[in-house]
Amino acid sequence: MTESDVVRTPLSPTPRSTVTRQRARATTERDALDAILDAGLICHLGVLLDGAPVVLPTTYGRDGNLLYLHGSTGAGNLRAALTGPVSVAVTHLDGIVYARSAMHFSMNYRSAVVHGHPVELTDSDERLHALRTIVDHVAPGSWDHARPPTKKEMAATVVLALDLTEASVKTRTGDPVDDTDDLASDTWAGVLPLRNIFENPIPSADLAVSIDIPEHVLARVSGTPVSAG
Amino acid sequence: MTESDVVRTPLSPTPRSTVTRQRARATTERDALDAILDAGLICHLGVLLDGAPVVLPTTYGRDGNLLYLHGSTGAGNLRAALTGPVSVAVTHLDGIVYARSAMHFSMNYRSAVVHGHPVELTDSDERLHALRTIVDHVAPGSWDHARPPTKKEMAATVVLALDLTEASVKTRTGDPVDDTDDLASDTWAGVLPLRNIFENPIPSADLAVSIDIPEHVLARVSGTPVSAG
Repeated sequence: MTESDVVRTPLSPTPRSTVTRQRARATTERDALDAILDAGLICHLGVLLDGAPVVLPTTYGRDGNLLYLHGSTGAGNLRAALTGPVSVAVTHLDGIVYARSAMHFSMNYRSAVVHGHPVELTDSDERLHALRTIVDHVAPGSWDHARPPTKKEMAATVVLALDLTEASVKTRTGDPVDDTDDLASDTWAGVLPLRNIFENPIPSADLAVSIDIPEHVLARVSGTPVSAG
Repeated sequence: MTESDVVRTPLSPTPRSTVTRQRARATTERDALDAILDAGLICHLGVLLDGAPVVLPTTYGRDGNLLYLHGSTGAGNLRAALTGPVSVAVTHLDGIVYARSAMHFSMNYRSAVVHGHPVELTDSDERLHALRTIVDHVAPGSWDHARPPTKKEMAATVVLALDLTEASVKTRTGDPVDDTDDLASDTWAGVLPLRNIFENPIPSADLAVSIDIPEHVLARVSGTPVSAG
């Protein structure tokens, strides 16, 4: 009853990206899609392998209307992504929703699902830009501190770009929605919020001791500190 | 170099579940599979819809060799899961791996991927057991406090069971693995650990004020407390 869910027109109302259930949880503004993708760390990539779906976690990055994926030239899943349609999901879990009745337990979440046919990038500058986007997505500010890829490393890497045009966004927020008859129940109901935190960085064992943890890494630390590394 | 990765025989070495890349990250003991599934909150379910993979986040539960899924009888994705093969991934992200070179950035993670053909449960007792398993997975100890499903609610619910026989587990732990030539670099390298925390429960706005937050909910709270709800 107190859900702040919003319904809007899908970004592209194809059968795949049109949410058939729980339309009240489908929001489809482009800003919402970008925000969910940009706040994520990994996606779940679905490809077709021998006629069956295979879902795998992988890193990604976004720039404008393109989602970038990369992997080894030897990776079967990347090859499969190039020969068939793919689905990419990014999900943030924000809370467990405790209800008075078993069937109304739920999750608060923000979820984006993208569908399409990725293309392989072949232009050197585009490939480098995509890899920079991916590295700076998972580790903001890191590309400029790290050794750039060699020609050999680039040759061993497949870089894909997926257009974000066919996508849908689904969110749930707020309290449980119990049946009116259950509201007088003496069962507790509410939300247990969930959050991802970064803890104190742990320097690599083979690191020269004189290297301080850089600010672009320290700036991500939040939540309960652990023993300093 | 300090990775504590382990290679073991896959649970079922089919082409789909055999990890083709980075075999050093594939561990396949049954205990590892169960531990990853039991520690997760949501899975990403991949189904075939009109010949294309569709990946969606959903809740689940595990008992023995079965993974349970449920949804509304009207949900197209659940119907698709019954007519074709599915893939289910559960992923825990444990840290961002900062390397000296761009191409060696990585993630520490624990990931399980299950493949198979789910079956629809039709026996009332089995269906109730599966729903209890799912509710007590996302909200441990809650089933016995909540109103059980009515016949009408049960009739509107599809419950699926997926055999865990065809599955693979992949993990990465430990430090970045940089090229020997890069070890003298003045770029910081290490791991930024990542953790999910539960914050203070927020009672539902329509809750009778006299209901205390129960112990099975409070017991999950960890990390930085927020203002008490």
